[in-house]
Amino acid sequence: MANQGLLKELIQSLCCLPGVGPKSAQRMAFHLLLRNREGARQLGRLLEKAVAEIGYCRDCRTLTEAEICEVCANPLRENDTLCIVESAADVWVVDQATTFKGKYFVLHGRLSPLDGIGPDQLGFDLLEQRMASGTLKEIILATNSTVEGQATAHFIGEVAAKHGIQATRIAHGVPMGGELEFIDSGTLSAAFNGRREL
Amino acid sequence: MANQGLLKELIQSLCCLPGVGPKSAQRMAFHLLLRNREGARQLGRLLEKAVAEIGYCRDCRTLTEAEICEVCANPLRENDTLCIVESAADVWVVDQATTFKGKYFVLHGRLSPLDGIGPDQLGFDLLEQRMASGTLKEIILATNSTVEGQATAHFIGEVAAKHGIQATRIAHGVPMGGELEFIDSGTLSAAFNGRREL
Ligand SMILES: [Zn+2]
Ligand SMILES: [Zn+2]
Repeated sequence: MANQGLLKELIQSLCCLPGVGPKSAQRMAFHLLLRNREGARQLGRLLEKAVAEIGYCRDCRTLTEAEICEVCANPLRENDTLCIVESAADVWVVDQATTFKGKYFVLHGRLSPLDGIGPDQLGFDLLEQRMASGTLKEIILATNSTVEGQATAHFIGEVAAKHGIQATRIAHGVPMGGELEFIDSGTLSAAFNGRREL
Repeated sequence: MANQGLLKELIQSLCCLPGVGPKSAQRMAFHLLLRNREGARQLGRLLEKAVAEIGYCRDCRTLTEAEICEVCANPLRENDTLCIVESAADVWVVDQATTFKGKYFVLHGRLSPLDGIGPDQLGFDLLEQRMASGTLKEIILATNSTVEGQATAHFIGEVAAKHGIQATRIAHGVPMGGELEFIDSGTLSAAFNGRREL
């Protein structure tokens, strides 16, 4: 039908959200314009601000608008234990579910040679610097318990061993093949406490 | 856990989208920031632009960034037939499913006294002006076939009769209790063609 130029553009653009197809995008656009313009204005502003200001923590690679994220900058968190996770979302999940008081390192992925994802893409240079610095006593490998997550954990465990650092893997309370992000707090907490040396 | 101030704000703001809870909002935020920053930037810009520029058509009340929408401004569309719909989305649905070549009028709702929605909220003053102008021969009532949609159609039909304008109701090919937006094109087209005088 006719134009509705800007409205059509907005609907198309909403389809860039994961899980949103043309039909839900249309519903979202109408909802925002007819019932929540203030929410739409704020969301627009925050999206632009987030893209402009949110980068990666210099120490742990998580998403943050600061040079160093709040966990890394927090003097109350222990420097000798490092929890390795696949995604920035996993930092939140682990921190909410457990009593872990150390720091994190975010891979933003897992080793996957077939997809061209090797150590370089996962910040291993930064991770090895950290291992070489002499402050680390334990590395907790909290990558997903998928085949690739397991392989990544083993690879990092071997590097840690070379630096004389203890590497532990979160216990298999986590269902095999499962992804950390979708697991309930209780199971995850148990898995965390039941971790054993790799 | 720690701050992630701007990221948390963004996630909360994404929850203003219909059907989006905290968990999917988080997934959306991470997806945009890690994998589609250009899409996020564009969506942010379009949301702000849409809120600032999209208003209501002076003639038919649909959403448009122009003073008069493209359907109302189109000299090839007939001025003597007016299709009344509940929502701006219905304009698109009817226009895509049928061969209708007249114009539209968008109520943005339906009569619902219990919710305080009366003729004033649905633009009836504008609609009566249109009826009084002498250009209209037929009004097609394409409100939903819910109880309130039916009542709204009957109410408008009576006003039309006073102005000597023929009022038709789209046929009951549309399932009773169903909403226009979710009906397949074939059924809707049949209902449109099978319309009869109210
Ligand atoms: Zn950090
Ligand atoms: Zn119009």
